Amino acid sequence: LCPPGVLPLCCRVPAWDRAARPPPSSPQPPGLPLAPCRSFSNNKIQVELDESSGVAMMKFKSPPVNSLSLEFLTEFSISLEKLENNRACRGVIITSAVPKIFSSGLDITEMCGKSIEHYTEFWRAVQEMWLRLYGSNMVTVAAVNGSSPAGGCLMALSCDYRIMAENPKFSIGLNEAQLGIVAPFWFKDTFVNVVGHRVAERSLQLGSLHPAPEAHKLGIVDELVPEEKLMEKAAAVMAQWLALPDHARQLTKTMMRKAVLDRLVAHREEDIKNFISFVSKESIQKSLRMYMEMLKKRKS
Amino acid sequence: LCPPGVLPLCCRVPAWDRAARPPPSSPQPPGLPLAPCRSFSNNKIQVELDESSGVAMMKFKSPPVNSLSLEFLTEFSISLEKLENNRACRGVIITSAVPKIFSSGLDITEMCGKSIEHYTEFWRAVQEMWLRLYGSNMVTVAAVNGSSPAGGCLMALSCDYRIMAENPKFSIGLNEAQLGIVAPFWFKDTFVNVVGHRVAERSLQLGSLHPAPEAHKLGIVDELVPEEKLMEKAAAVMAQWLALPDHARQLTKTMMRKAVLDRLVAHREEDIKNFISFVSKESIQKSLRMYMEMLKKRKS
Amino acid sequence: LCPPGVLPLCCRVPAWDRAARPPPSSPQPPGLPLAPCRSFSNNKIQVELDESSGVAMMKFKSPPVNSLSLEFLTEFSISLEKLENNRACRGVIITSAVPKIFSSGLDITEMCGKSIEHYTEFWRAVQEMWLRLYGSNMVTVAAVNGSSPAGGCLMALSCDYRIMAENPKFSIGLNEAQLGIVAPFWFKDTFVNVVGHRVAERSLQLGSLHPAPEAHKLGIVDELVPEEKLMEKAAAVMAQWLALPDHARQLTKTMMRKAVLDRLVAHREEDIKNFISFVSKESIQKSLRMYMEMLKKRKS
Repeated sequence: LCPPGVLPLCCRVPAWDRAARPPPSSPQPPGLPLAPCRSFSNNKIQVELDESSGVAMMKFKSPPVNSLSLEFLTEFSISLEKLENNRACRGVIITSAVPKIFSSGLDITEMCGKSIEHYTEFWRAVQEMWLRLYGSNMVTVAAVNGSSPAGGCLMALSCDYRIMAENPKFSIGLNEAQLGIVAPFWFKDTFVNVVGHRVAERSLQLGSLHPAPEAHKLGIVDELVPEEKLMEKAAAVMAQWLALPDHARQLTKTMMRKAVLDRLVAHREEDIKNFISFVSKESIQKSLRMYMEMLKKRKS
Repeated sequence: LCPPGVLPLCCRVPAWDRAARPPPSSPQPPGLPLAPCRSFSNNKIQVELDESSGVAMMKFKSPPVNSLSLEFLTEFSISLEKLENNRACRGVIITSAVPKIFSSGLDITEMCGKSIEHYTEFWRAVQEMWLRLYGSNMVTVAAVNGSSPAGGCLMALSCDYRIMAENPKFSIGLNEAQLGIVAPFWFKDTFVNVVGHRVAERSLQLGSLHPAPEAHKLGIVDELVPEEKLMEKAAAVMAQWLALPDHARQLTKTMMRKAVLDRLVAHREEDIKNFISFVSKESIQKSLRMYMEMLKKRKS
Repeated sequence: LCPPGVLPLCCRVPAWDRAARPPPSSPQPPGLPLAPCRSFSNNKIQVELDESSGVAMMKFKSPPVNSLSLEFLTEFSISLEKLENNRACRGVIITSAVPKIFSSGLDITEMCGKSIEHYTEFWRAVQEMWLRLYGSNMVTVAAVNGSSPAGGCLMALSCDYRIMAENPKFSIGLNEAQLGIVAPFWFKDTFVNVVGHRVAERSLQLGSLHPAPEAHKLGIVDELVPEEKLMEKAAAVMAQWLALPDHARQLTKTMMRKAVLDRLVAHREEDIKNFISFVSKESIQKSLRMYMEMLKKRKS
């Protein structure tokens, strides 16, 4: 920890000096040079990096509802890591390319009729997404341009700043309890860090999906703007955060978030076991199969 | 802990399936069947259960001020346990049958001129009341229809939701410091969980009794309504909370409150010793006697 | 910990009974009697005690910007200890005798070209200031009559109550990140206790200096008043806090602040080592020298 107080502006760590950046948690294997990443796209997520501003845009493009499948989560973590390792990239804006939905949360097909190995891999990917996003050294801004329940809400909560389209038809919240399930403790910890204990307790117990205006009032999102101004505003907020020297901002962020990140790291395997034990129950499996049948019928 | 995400509505735990409910902390002794509890009344507290809604009403009827005597506290804990063990009961509304007062807090006659054994029993009953109420698996709504200082405030703070009559003559707060004493750490923990550290620090140090409008502004109560609408509103809020599947709501509540409950459980005997050491002081005993003399004169 | 509840007013600990006050952490050496302290002044801080009200006024008078030099910090801690040991003193108002500035924070000349011994002594003095102020048994009110960045902000945050002149040209905040450095963990803990996790996280990462109206909205200061009413208001707030019995108020304050105070006490030497390691870096020293040159040129 560094000292406080009035220190010279000239001792600012230059923004382009990324040497100070702590090593990413999963370094590239030696001999495998990082590809230049001005822009890359894969099945689920499109990434564009503006090297002049140092800002990347990550767009979720997994219709119909950007659900967090194993493939989506893996692509997300890899994309984030690529940006994290790219010295030209200092911040990332995450948003959706699918109309009306930011992300619908975890993909239930990943939890249905699969092997223990699959469940393990899936849940580890959910954890990995959060550990990387909540602990990212980059400035992270969520441009929430649609509804964002459950795991989608978690992704927004894990960013440094949340801007939401002011459309009251869009809602956001950790609504797990509505579905008869319970948000994991690290979803709860992230939520409490944003809105405090009382708002979190009430919202989690009621499984509330808050319309944008209410979400703003409760502090779940920091700002509402008309949908057509969302990206412009996200860029402006990003510029404000990037005006700070990276190194000091990163250490400050770590100081604020480390306790909660460490808690999952310490209980990661136990958390996976809990998930498997839940999802392996025959009653849960039966419910999942029925639900998927219903979804299939709806489509046709 | 269960997983988050979008899970099928059909996997909701049905509201009437109470098998999932964790066992109460003090189970009935074997062979002693639970009496049916549609409605029961004793000296201090009247309980009515509406089996169609699953909601019980607990009315404090211990005039003049519903002070928390050993008898009152014991009846409260027993009544709550009966409801907790009754599968037909999913929520409880607590309120007062005495005009203008919800509860005046701990009964000082229990602390005056009694034996160490009595003090021990009394303080254990205070702890028991809080452990059962703050940790209740049922939805708990406080309909605060009068003033609610000290221990009365604690009871309200321990519920899931607080609605107060909007009469500015009614006040609520942990005013112990005004009386030269200090709220126990678990009163403080409960308060911090509701209003945050800063509001709690200031209010506890000043021993503030907040008029209803101020209490609402500070977040001590969730809602104000005209006194004649209080019970109607409490029923509506209860219905909203009962729309959630019990099991998920209960596990979520436990996740939010366990740390603070565990802290008293871990330090329970120490907390009792502290109380006895305080109340046994000759200076405190003298003050209590003088105060009770004063109260007697006032009555006559 | 004492019991809660309705206790007689007659058991209030009389305000003049200071025997209950816990001993200060660094008692006077034996044989060195405390000087009477109705009013004393030294180089950097002027203290006046009104024995009739029991309230001391501490005025920072170290132009141009009340920077927290080793001498200033030492005088501050000694002055506070004198008042703490004086039974006639129950509260202290801290304010500035320098126009437009409350305090500019840590003095950088103390961190430049000095020995390890000096850095150690300086940082220990910064810690000592905070431990004494945040842990003071007296009622502490900050009358913030000017800008208050970094260490100046910490001093205000460490008081029981903050009143700020409503001049929007005056700003306050822990702006360390703007300067490329990181606030120590105990600055952060103090901030979180006042404004909560989310406001602290955002403000610390952005190194924000909040104009008075914004600071009030965020809860960084409790109240804004016109500058000419500042001292009058501070006296009124002090009188309100002094209406409480000292002993109960002190124990309550300790209950609220102990965890955070204990954390620095437990990591004090480590915190000093961190500071020395930072300030000893050649890059930091070079920056400091350049900055001081710049300041010298500006003056001439």
